[in-house]
Amino acid sequence: MPFVTVEMLEGRTLEQKRALVEKVTVAVEEAIGVPKERIHVFVKDLKKDEYAHAGVLTIDK
Amino acid sequence: MPFVTVEMLEGRTLEQKRALVEKVTVAVEEAIGVPKERIHVFVKDLKKDEYAHAGVLTIDK
Amino acid sequence: MPFVTVEMLEGRTLEQKRALVEKVTVAVEEAIGVPKERIHVFVKDLKKDEYAHAGVLTIDK
Amino acid sequence: MPFVTVEMLEGRTLEQKRALVEKVTVAVEEAIGVPKERIHVFVKDLKKDEYAHAGVLTIDK
Amino acid sequence: MPFVTVEMLEGRTLEQKRALVEKVTVAVEEAIGVPKERIHVFVKDLKKDEYAHAGVLTIDK
Amino acid sequence: MPFVTVEMLEGRTLEQKRALVEKVTVAVEEAIGVPKERIHVFVKDLKKDEYAHAGVLTIDK
Repeated sequence: MPFVTVEMLEGRTLEQKRALVEKVTVAVEEAIGVPKERIHVFVKDLKKDEYAHAGVLTIDK
Repeated sequence: MPFVTVEMLEGRTLEQKRALVEKVTVAVEEAIGVPKERIHVFVKDLKKDEYAHAGVLTIDK
Repeated sequence: MPFVTVEMLEGRTLEQKRALVEKVTVAVEEAIGVPKERIHVFVKDLKKDEYAHAGVLTIDK
Repeated sequence: MPFVTVEMLEGRTLEQKRALVEKVTVAVEEAIGVPKERIHVFVKDLKKDEYAHAGVLTIDK
Repeated sequence: MPFVTVEMLEGRTLEQKRALVEKVTVAVEEAIGVPKERIHVFVKDLKKDEYAHAGVLTIDK
Repeated sequence: MPFVTVEMLEGRTLEQKRALVEKVTVAVEEAIGVPKERIHVFVKDLKKDEYAHAGVLTIDK
């Protein structure tokens, strides 16, 4: 513990996902003083037909 | 805010997903008086081997 | 199935929550043609120190 | 109710998923005395670029 | 990994929760052959005004 | 989008939660180049009887 889940629009590169999990882990480590060995990060891609804002799917924007 | 997540069996058409996010957004707007610009809806498909009821996967029913 | 989760800022009345689950259930029923007996809705309150937008907690806004 | 979600690394066979939902359902039934007809289990696969421990993606280990 | 989340109506005793996490962990261990040291279980209570089936909150049933 | 959820053991101060959401938002901003106005962070406390590792609740460790 802690467990961090990031949900974001699909399309990021593996490089970006590497940077994301690394920077988020450091951020959690610094903010609440937990060693990174206890930090789990999940990265979930959202397709454009899986997310809507103000009643309209991203695919339709 | 608010954030709405709908998990359902895969297989719905894009048209159905459009209707779903639109109607759910209106429902939330009417029920708790939040403008639709602040309503986020996630639609997640479940495969038949990802959901079980009474101990049996949907794929086996 | 389907399963709907609504996460929103705490403070709504029981009446509002009743209207919310009822209207969301009807919305799902109409949009994807599933009978309401198969629709589950979860309503989760978020405290003001549990949600941040643009790096600032709601409690600090 | 109850609802159980299992998130695990992708790659398990359908047979393993069958055993998983069955055994988890029995475990819940025995532990809290709820009939299996009221137990829902979700099984979600995580890709190797979707999970990181100690700041490193599984794909990079 | 894996990560198991159990959502259930509030009211279970600590004893029941102990039995739940133990039995679910064994079930996962047996089903997919992962040592229990790598199994995380979350138990989340749902209040009666947080869950609705067929458009009606549990509190109103 | 993106949406970040942090689940951690209860007990952190408001100051720590402030630092957490701020640092995590900056981390996401830097890693995938999204402006912080589009980043939402949820912080969820887990009680000691809500999380188990290796079949044992934190409350029993």
